[in-house]
Amino acid sequence: MVRIMTIKVAINGYGTIGKRVADAVDAQDDMEIVGVTKTRPAFGCDLAVRKGYPIFCTYDDADRIAAFGAAGYTCHGGLSDLLEIADIVVDCSPGKVGASNKEKYESAGIKWIFQGGEKHAMTGNSYTSSANHTENLGVEGTRVVSCNTTGLSRTLVPLYEHCGSLSVECTMIRRAADPGDSSKGPINAIKPVLKVPSHHGPDVMTVKPEIQINSMAVAVPTTLMHVHVIVATLPEGHGLTTESVLSMWNARPRIVIMNGSETGITTTAEVMEFARDIGRKWGDLHEIFVWEDGVKLEGNTLYYFQAIHQESDVIPENVDAIRALMNTEPDWMASVAKTDAAISSYNHL
Amino acid sequence: MVRIMTIKVAINGYGTIGKRVADAVDAQDDMEIVGVTKTRPAFGCDLAVRKGYPIFCTYDDADRIAAFGAAGYTCHGGLSDLLEIADIVVDCSPGKVGASNKEKYESAGIKWIFQGGEKHAMTGNSYTSSANHTENLGVEGTRVVSCNTTGLSRTLVPLYEHCGSLSVECTMIRRAADPGDSSKGPINAIKPVLKVPSHHGPDVMTVKPEIQINSMAVAVPTTLMHVHVIVATLPEGHGLTTESVLSMWNARPRIVIMNGSETGITTTAEVMEFARDIGRKWGDLHEIFVWEDGVKLEGNTLYYFQAIHQESDVIPENVDAIRALMNTEPDWMASVAKTDAAISSYNHL
Amino acid sequence: MVRIMTIKVAINGYGTIGKRVADAVDAQDDMEIVGVTKTRPAFGCDLAVRKGYPIFCTYDDADRIAAFGAAGYTCHGGLSDLLEIADIVVDCSPGKVGASNKEKYESAGIKWIFQGGEKHAMTGNSYTSSANHTENLGVEGTRVVSCNTTGLSRTLVPLYEHCGSLSVECTMIRRAADPGDSSKGPINAIKPVLKVPSHHGPDVMTVKPEIQINSMAVAVPTTLMHVHVIVATLPEGHGLTTESVLSMWNARPRIVIMNGSETGITTTAEVMEFARDIGRKWGDLHEIFVWEDGVKLEGNTLYYFQAIHQESDVIPENVDAIRALMNTEPDWMASVAKTDAAISSYNHL
Amino acid sequence: MVRIMTIKVAINGYGTIGKRVADAVDAQDDMEIVGVTKTRPAFGCDLAVRKGYPIFCTYDDADRIAAFGAAGYTCHGGLSDLLEIADIVVDCSPGKVGASNKEKYESAGIKWIFQGGEKHAMTGNSYTSSANHTENLGVEGTRVVSCNTTGLSRTLVPLYEHCGSLSVECTMIRRAADPGDSSKGPINAIKPVLKVPSHHGPDVMTVKPEIQINSMAVAVPTTLMHVHVIVATLPEGHGLTTESVLSMWNARPRIVIMNGSETGITTTAEVMEFARDIGRKWGDLHEIFVWEDGVKLEGNTLYYFQAIHQESDVIPENVDAIRALMNTEPDWMASVAKTDAAISSYNHL
Repeated sequence: MVRIMTIKVAINGYGTIGKRVADAVDAQDDMEIVGVTKTRPAFGCDLAVRKGYPIFCTYDDADRIAAFGAAGYTCHGGLSDLLEIADIVVDCSPGKVGASNKEKYESAGIKWIFQGGEKHAMTGNSYTSSANHTENLGVEGTRVVSCNTTGLSRTLVPLYEHCGSLSVECTMIRRAADPGDSSKGPINAIKPVLKVPSHHGPDVMTVKPEIQINSMAVAVPTTLMHVHVIVATLPEGHGLTTESVLSMWNARPRIVIMNGSETGITTTAEVMEFARDIGRKWGDLHEIFVWEDGVKLEGNTLYYFQAIHQESDVIPENVDAIRALMNTEPDWMASVAKTDAAISSYNHL
Repeated sequence: MVRIMTIKVAINGYGTIGKRVADAVDAQDDMEIVGVTKTRPAFGCDLAVRKGYPIFCTYDDADRIAAFGAAGYTCHGGLSDLLEIADIVVDCSPGKVGASNKEKYESAGIKWIFQGGEKHAMTGNSYTSSANHTENLGVEGTRVVSCNTTGLSRTLVPLYEHCGSLSVECTMIRRAADPGDSSKGPINAIKPVLKVPSHHGPDVMTVKPEIQINSMAVAVPTTLMHVHVIVATLPEGHGLTTESVLSMWNARPRIVIMNGSETGITTTAEVMEFARDIGRKWGDLHEIFVWEDGVKLEGNTLYYFQAIHQESDVIPENVDAIRALMNTEPDWMASVAKTDAAISSYNHL
Repeated sequence: MVRIMTIKVAINGYGTIGKRVADAVDAQDDMEIVGVTKTRPAFGCDLAVRKGYPIFCTYDDADRIAAFGAAGYTCHGGLSDLLEIADIVVDCSPGKVGASNKEKYESAGIKWIFQGGEKHAMTGNSYTSSANHTENLGVEGTRVVSCNTTGLSRTLVPLYEHCGSLSVECTMIRRAADPGDSSKGPINAIKPVLKVPSHHGPDVMTVKPEIQINSMAVAVPTTLMHVHVIVATLPEGHGLTTESVLSMWNARPRIVIMNGSETGITTTAEVMEFARDIGRKWGDLHEIFVWEDGVKLEGNTLYYFQAIHQESDVIPENVDAIRALMNTEPDWMASVAKTDAAISSYNHL
Repeated sequence: MVRIMTIKVAINGYGTIGKRVADAVDAQDDMEIVGVTKTRPAFGCDLAVRKGYPIFCTYDDADRIAAFGAAGYTCHGGLSDLLEIADIVVDCSPGKVGASNKEKYESAGIKWIFQGGEKHAMTGNSYTSSANHTENLGVEGTRVVSCNTTGLSRTLVPLYEHCGSLSVECTMIRRAADPGDSSKGPINAIKPVLKVPSHHGPDVMTVKPEIQINSMAVAVPTTLMHVHVIVATLPEGHGLTTESVLSMWNARPRIVIMNGSETGITTTAEVMEFARDIGRKWGDLHEIFVWEDGVKLEGNTLYYFQAIHQESDVIPENVDAIRALMNTEPDWMASVAKTDAAISSYNHL
C-alpha cells in the first residue's frame, strides 16, 4: 500500500493565529510542523519549545538569529532556511508584508497560504472549505478568508446551493479588541465603520461570486466574539421553511445550532463558556454558533444571528487549504471530517 | 387680542423621563407644570422642590400621602387631586400600569399621553412629531412612541414622503443599561434579541403605516446611545442621490448631521461629549445624530447609521403632543420650532 | 505493601465550582468520583455524561429523580443514595443551604467539605493548603476558604512564618461578574463595598489567626480576575529585601511570578491569555499571579499586587482538603505536589 | 470705593480642562478671559466663538495663524500676542511642553499657572485651595495639582490639621479613559500600575509636606470617575469618632457626603447621574464624593472611599489659584466661597 508522504508545513509568524494553526496541523497524521518563526526571542518562544516546534527567525539576518541563542532558545536559522525544508508555508504574519513574503515563497519554490488580512488581489486565489475547495486543488497559493467571510460562507453557501441565487444584507457587530489585548478601546461606546458598505460582506464573493452581499459594521466594547445579523432574500419558489433551513445547516460541518431559551446560552458570554465547558483548547470555538430561536423565514426573507469566534474559526480551514493546495484530498467534506476528528483529539473531552 | 390659556400639565411619574418632560414643558410659555407625582418621599423629590414643581403622591392613600410630610416634603395630595387641576397628564410611570391609569385619566375627564413603553393597542393612537401630528389633533389621548421609533421616523418619513413607498431593514445596536444604572449587564458580551424580527422597527408603522419595516436587535455593553444600522430600499425612479438625501434631512428638525472624519466624532462617546460641550442639560441630545460620511445611496439602496439618545429624543415630542391633543397648534413644524427654541433657553449656551 | 483505599468522593452541586473539583479529583490516583448532583435535567448533565460521572438528583423526591430519565439522562438516585456510597462529600451548592446540608452529611456519617461561600461559624473549621493542613487532619468537616482568602494565604503565610507577626491592609478590586454571566453589571462604573472594613481580608484569620488583616473592596466592570492591592507591615528586624521576598514566594507552590515589562503581561487580560496559551483547561489559572516588578519592600512596608482567578484557585485546595480530612497525607507540600502533578495531566501541554 | 481691577486671564490650550477653566473664570466678576489658544482651526473653535472668547493660535507662526481665517474663524494672533494683553496665563496644554512654555510666560512678564500633569520640580510651587493658598499668595507661578492630589487634600488636610500628624495608604482605582475617548482600553481587564508605590499619593506632599502618604494604583474599564480607597492612621489621642470626622468634612467646602443605602447612589454611575440631575454643566462634579456609610474609624485607623471627577475637581482650584497669585484674596475660604457661588450661576438649577 502506498503511504502518502507527510506534508511538511512551515508557520511564518507564531502569534495568535500561528500558534493555533500549528497545533491543528500537528494534530493531523498527514502533515507535520517543520518550523515556526518568531521575530525575536520573546515570550512566545516558550510555547514553541513546549510543543517541540523548531524555532526559526523571521529574518535571515545573522545577528537577529544569534539573539535567540543568547536568550537561551535554539534557533534553527532564518526564514530562508525554513522554507527550504518545507512543502508549504502558512503565513500568519501580522499583515502588510504579504507581497514581499509572497516573493520569498515563490523563490523558494513552495506553496503558500495567506490569511484574510491580505487582499484577494495580492493572492489571486481565496479559500474557504465550504465554498471552493475544488477550485483551489493544486494551486500554487491561496488566501484563507477572514473569520467573518468564513462564517458567512458556512451558512450562506448551502442556502445559495439550494436556491440558485441569494441576496444578503449583513450587519456585523464586532468585538473591538482581542481577549488578550488591553490597550484598545472603546470602553463605553459604539463605533460605526463609516466606510459604507463595509468590505466585510463583499469579501464572500471572492469565494462564491454568485452570492450578492453587502454589509455594514460597528465595533462594540467586548472581547469575546463577533455577531452577524443577517437578512437574506431568497428567490421566489425557494421551497424552504425555517425548519428546513435549520435542517440544512445541521447537515453541514462547523455549524453549532442551539436554542437560547432552552440552554440559557443567550449571549456570546455563555457561548464562550460553553466552548470552555466542552474542553476546547484556548476555549476556542471553531464552529460558528447559530441561535435556533433567532432564525426566522418570513416569505422570502430569512433572518438570523450567528456568532463568530474571531481567532479560531479559520484554524481548521487552514488545514483543509493545505490539503487542497497539495492536492491530497479532493473532497472538501472528507477533508473537513479528517481535520476536525484530529483536532478533537487535543481537546479536553 | 385673545390670549390662549396656559395648558395645565400634570406629570405622573417623576423619574428619568418625567423629570426631563417637566423641564421641557416648564420652558414653554403656553404650558405649565401643575404637579408631579412620586410614589414615596425619595431622593427625586429634592429635584422637584428645587424646580418649584408641586409634589403629589402617585396613590390616593392617606398614609402614603402623609409619609411625604413626615420626610419634610410638602405633598399636595394624591393622583386624583392632581388630575382635578390639570388639563392633560403625561404618564411617565415605569409601564405595565398603563391600562389602569388610563381609566383614571378618563374618569377625571382630562387628556392623556403615554410613553412608548405602552402598547399602541392600549392607547389606540400613537404620536411622533415628524409623522402624524395632524392625525393627533384634538384626540383624547395618545402614545408618544419609543426613542427608537421616534428616531427612525425622523429620517424615514421624509424619505417616504419623497418616494411614495419605502422598504426598510434596520439592525438596532442597543445600549444594555442606562447611564445611571449599575446593576444591569452584560459587562463583556453581545446579546441578540432572539425574537425575530424584533418589535422595534414595525412600531414605526403605528405612526406611518405605509412604511414597510422590519428590524433585528442586539444589546451591547455600553450605556450611552443606541445605534441604528439602516438599509432602506427606495422605489425605482426615486431621483435621489446621497447628497440630496443629506439635504433633505438637513432641512428637517431634530436631525444633527456631522462628518465623522472631519470632526473626530466617530463613536457614540464623542457624540455624547459633543452634547455636553454645547451645554445641553443632563448632556442630552434631543436630536438624532447621523454620520454624514456613513450615508451612501447605491442604486436603490440607501445605507446609513444613526445614533439615538434613549432618554431624551422623545422629550420635545411630548411637548408637541400636548399641543396636538389640546389642538392649539395644527402645524407640526411650527410646534417643533416653538418647542425647541424654548428648550434651548435652559441649555448652557 | 498496603495500598490505601481509593477515596470515594461525592460532588453535591455540579456547577462552576463543582465541575472543576470533579475533574481535579478524577485526575488523582487516590480518589474517585462516585457521583455528582444536579437539581434538574439541565444542560450541565451533558458534561457529567461525557466525563462518565454518575448523576444523582440534589433531592430525594421521586418525581424529581424521574424527570432526569424523562429527559434522557440516567439518574442514579437522590442525594441520600449518593451519600451512602461516598466517603466524603464536597458541597459545591450555591450557598445558603449549608446548614441543612451539613445535617444530611452528618446523618450519613461521612466527611464533608464546604466552600468559602459558607461561614466559618457554620463549619467550625476552615482550610487552605498553605496555612493549616495539619490542623485539619482527620476532622469531620471543614470549609475550603474563598478564592480571595486562598490567594492571600499563599503570599501572606510565608511572610508571617518568616517574620512571626504581620499586619496587612488589602484593597480588593473585584471582577463584578463571572465570564459566563451576562446579566450582572455594572457596565461602566466602580462600586465600592460600603461595609467597611470588608469581610474578605479578615477571613484569612480563620486559617491563620495570627495575621492581622483588614480589607476594603470595590467591584469593577470586568469578568476575568480579581486583583489584590496589598500593603503589609513587617515587624522591625524582619531581615527581608524585595529580592528575598520574591525568592521566598518562588519556593512556594501555586504562586506564578512574572515580570510585566519583560513579558508584556501587564493586565489581567494578558494573564488569562497566558493561562490559555499554556493549555489550561477552561483557561483556568490555579496559581495566583504576582507581578515581579510590582513588588517593593520599603523599610518595613511591603507593597505588591496579585491577581486571582476566582473560579479556579480553590480547586486544587479541595483535593488537598480531602486528603487532610481522610488523613491520608499529613504533609501539605506532599499533597500539593501530588495534586498539581495529577491536574497537569489534563492540561493541554 | 476702590474697585479692584478685573484680572485679565489667558487660557493656553482650550481642550478638556481649558474649556472648563475658561467658563469658570468667565463666571467670576473679578476676572475675565482675554483669549484662548488652539493649535489649529478645529472643531473646538466653535465653542470659543459661542462663548465669545477671542481665539489665538498656540504658535506665533504666520501661516498657522492665517489658517484660522481660511477656515472662517477670527484669529487674534499668536501666543505672544495673547500673553501681551494678559495678567496671568493658565496653561492647559496637553503637557510635556511645560518647561518651554514657562520661559515664554516669564519673558512676557506675566504670572502663570500649570496643571498637575507637569512636575513640581519644574514649577517650584504647587497649589490646592484647601492646603496652601497662603503659601502661594503673590508668587510668580504655580502648579494646580492633579485631580487626585486635589481630592486627597480635601479630606486629608482637615484630618492633619486636627491631628497634627497623619500617615496614609491610598489605593487608586482609576478610570482608564476619558468619557469622550473611544480609542483607549482596556475593555475587559484590570491594569495595575507596576511602579510601586505610585507617584499619585506622594504628590500630596507638594502641597502639605507633613502628611505621610503612599499609594498604589490600578486602571479599570470605566470612563466616569476615579475611586480612592483610603486607610489613614491617626496618631494616638486623636479624639475623633466616625461621626466627628464626617462633621469635620461637612464643614469644609467641595466635599459632598451622601449615604449610599439611603439615596441609592452606590456606584460612580449614580454619582454622575446625580451631578446631571442637579444641573451641572457637562455633568461635572467639582466636589469630591464621599459615601457616608463607607467611612469607619476603628481605633486609630480611618477607612473611607471617595470618588473623583477627573476633569472637573481642579477647575474651581484654578480660579482660586489666580486670586492667590494676583494676591487679591488672602483668605482661601473666602475665595472658595466666591468661586463656587459664581460657578453655580451657570449651572442649570
